[in-house]
Amino acid sequence: MTHAQLGRRELMAGGAVAASALVVASCARGKEADPVGQATSGEKGASVSGAPLADAIVPFDGEHQAGVQTPSQAHVNLVGFNLKDGAGQRGARNLMRLWTEDARALCTAETPRGSLEPEMTQTPANLTVTCGWGESFFAKIGAQKPEWLGDVRSYTRDKLRPEWGQTDVVLQICCDDQLTASHVLRHMVRSGASYADVAWVQQGFLNANGSLEDGETPRNVFGQKDGTVNPKTDADFGEQVWIEDGPFKGGTAMVVRRINMNMETWEEVDRHAREISIGRTLDNGAPLSGTEENDPVDLEARDKYGLKAIDPTSHVARAHPPADHPEQVILRRPYNFDLAPSPERPGELSNSGQIFICFQKNPREQFEPIQARLDELDQLNTWITHVGSAMYYVVPGTQGGTSWGENLLKG
Amino acid sequence: MTHAQLGRRELMAGGAVAASALVVASCARGKEADPVGQATSGEKGASVSGAPLADAIVPFDGEHQAGVQTPSQAHVNLVGFNLKDGAGQRGARNLMRLWTEDARALCTAETPRGSLEPEMTQTPANLTVTCGWGESFFAKIGAQKPEWLGDVRSYTRDKLRPEWGQTDVVLQICCDDQLTASHVLRHMVRSGASYADVAWVQQGFLNANGSLEDGETPRNVFGQKDGTVNPKTDADFGEQVWIEDGPFKGGTAMVVRRINMNMETWEEVDRHAREISIGRTLDNGAPLSGTEENDPVDLEARDKYGLKAIDPTSHVARAHPPADHPEQVILRRPYNFDLAPSPERPGELSNSGQIFICFQKNPREQFEPIQARLDELDQLNTWITHVGSAMYYVVPGTQGGTSWGENLLKG
Ligand code: HEM
Ligand code: HEM
Repeated sequence: MTHAQLGRRELMAGGAVAASALVVASCARGKEADPVGQATSGEKGASVSGAPLADAIVPFDGEHQAGVQTPSQAHVNLVGFNLKDGAGQRGARNLMRLWTEDARALCTAETPRGSLEPEMTQTPANLTVTCGWGESFFAKIGAQKPEWLGDVRSYTRDKLRPEWGQTDVVLQICCDDQLTASHVLRHMVRSGASYADVAWVQQGFLNANGSLEDGETPRNVFGQKDGTVNPKTDADFGEQVWIEDGPFKGGTAMVVRRINMNMETWEEVDRHAREISIGRTLDNGAPLSGTEENDPVDLEARDKYGLKAIDPTSHVARAHPPADHPEQVILRRPYNFDLAPSPERPGELSNSGQIFICFQKNPREQFEPIQARLDELDQLNTWITHVGSAMYYVVPGTQGGTSWGENLLKG
Repeated sequence: MTHAQLGRRELMAGGAVAASALVVASCARGKEADPVGQATSGEKGASVSGAPLADAIVPFDGEHQAGVQTPSQAHVNLVGFNLKDGAGQRGARNLMRLWTEDARALCTAETPRGSLEPEMTQTPANLTVTCGWGESFFAKIGAQKPEWLGDVRSYTRDKLRPEWGQTDVVLQICCDDQLTASHVLRHMVRSGASYADVAWVQQGFLNANGSLEDGETPRNVFGQKDGTVNPKTDADFGEQVWIEDGPFKGGTAMVVRRINMNMETWEEVDRHAREISIGRTLDNGAPLSGTEENDPVDLEARDKYGLKAIDPTSHVARAHPPADHPEQVILRRPYNFDLAPSPERPGELSNSGQIFICFQKNPREQFEPIQARLDELDQLNTWITHVGSAMYYVVPGTQGGTSWGENLLKG
């Protein structure tokens, strides 16, 4: 074990007691442990800056899993798995033990047991690995599921494709270094191979760590600042995201929607119309009812002609919580994708979109009613198509040595 | 125009006169221009560190195109295009004018003419866009081609797939920010759409900028340090890479090989055997004839048993230039890929490999004889398969206002 690893270990022992998984520390390889960066709770966007990327560590253990309240890293490998036939409760329990142990090691720059690749685990670069269980996972282990967990309801505009559908389990691997994300994907697939098969891999990206100023909102492939209105403080997360009591306490609900975005038709539209469609400017992302990005969305504000400043059919107006439903808010943690043109998207020179990932206490009361409004009417629908959908219960965080969902797996 | 853009402009005016395209400068957005990073000529690996990523600019104009001698950025979008039927010399000339103007703007954080996305051009993050012409491009414009330019010769182990084959033109878009790389891909495809169609897009990555120390060699998906032996100084580049006289002066030859790497079978092998197969250690990448990464590859060195320290069938032994052919050396600038598992790779849980990109004066005398030796015998062949192949002439650099290959397009 090198000195730097010792340093990390000591660091972790301290980090693990923090209630929030947001303490981000960093130490230079081969040098004294030297924590230099600390993201404030609820900060979003460009991840930590000013810290050497290689050794930036997000603590693995904590009340909640990391990768939810953690500022978005630059890359995601989102992997849907199905349990092998006959894995049963026993297989599921082994899988969770193996995976938790490996994920904990990888996230803290240790080499997982049995790994022959110590060199590939030296660059955690803010790595988080987050595990969620689908309804079918609970059925297979014979455990009581959260009441809300099940298929996402269907919407009239859905064009869902079977290859992006619900799976038993999901791993969300987020990292500021794509090589590390790739190694972790490979490692987790292999380490779980006796119990689970990969159903799909969704790869996405945001601006690089170091490309944005601290807390700057990243842009999506349409050029929009995406992620402005989101829970920021621990209190916000407590209200909107973390389940705070009952058997599922400490966890949260994850909804994944794969959404194609049509660059061809979007680009036919002038900037003014683009801004109206979303209800915010492209330049600094200010709501059309204000001048700065973080100005409140005021759906009653009028322009000089007496018309509504934010068009009632715009995405923001439709997504905003109605006055009588303030609970209809979510944490959005989306990633961009941009792949080679695909025959499945005839007439498009591109194959881009968004892996829309959101977190909340209860998707039936948060994601679903919002999406129902958008499905019914939203100017953005002109250019986007939902092609994938899944819902998971993100199990609570772990504490030194416990594994994912341990209390739920006790038979 | 913002102050920061003015700063960049001034910077460019100064930067453009440098003979090498390697002067990397950077200025913080919205602040005084403040060049903080300067990569030394021939430095490879992790690109510039210590400089704020967003505004790091690699000068576009210069004796040679950028993206060859430039330290490798974290992401590549390599795009093969074919001219539309009937584009002819006139279409080719228009295409090169349009593309050069747009690439110059994008690389220097200006908004290309007609672009409605000024926000997407503010984060060059060491962007380079490099253009190469295939043999068929010369045929279509009716111009004299470099003698060596044509199909890469075939090898017995080739398993080439038509979808990764030769094209008329290639654009190599390299950037430390994947969102910028994605926008530039989209912009270039669209701006050339009247004259050229996309044949393929090959997307690759290395460690993030900031993950490696200055000049540290990045690793490939097998965990090997890949890129140790490479031209480093201007003199090396003059000898090995840049064409120094005749009508094609200032340019270079690019060979692209898409190579699948089989993680399943590689991982069955222990570390010792892995190291023997390549001829270097996994830990620090030292040749088995030495102790440090940059120690010379000594193929005659013996171990304590009197056996050759570097196995003569290892990749390094086979790739090393024979004593009587010191000219058999190349610049390797490879990128990793790691995509979702593919039915084309039965039995593999992964879909990873390398986009092998190399540059040299003459591929018939450099790449081809090396690859002939590897094809004949190389332990690495156990785990790798060449599935794509193409060759291009990379046209010389431009100077304020001239466009790619202008002198060759004068009919
Ligand atoms: C490709 C699809 C989508 C794109 C491009 C997109 C883009 C945006 C943008 C640019 C904003 C304004 C800035 C911000 O507050 O982040 C926004 C806000 C928002 N979006 Fe979306 N969005 C998409 C899909 C969705 C979906 C599927 C949902 C949930 C069902 C959703 C829910 C919201 C919410 C809740 C807000 C904040 C509204 C408020 O101001 O209160 N979005 N989105
Ligand atoms: C997936 C395919 C490949 C992998 C994983 C790979 C990996 C490596 C590694 C790890 C090294 C040693 C470190 C270094 O000097 O960079 C190396 C050296 C080298 N490789 Fe490869 N390589 C691949 C394909 C090729 C191909 C196709 C060629 C050219 C035909 C090539 C030519 C070379 C050369 C010239 C060297 C330096 C040899 C010397 O020490 O003089 N490689 N490669």
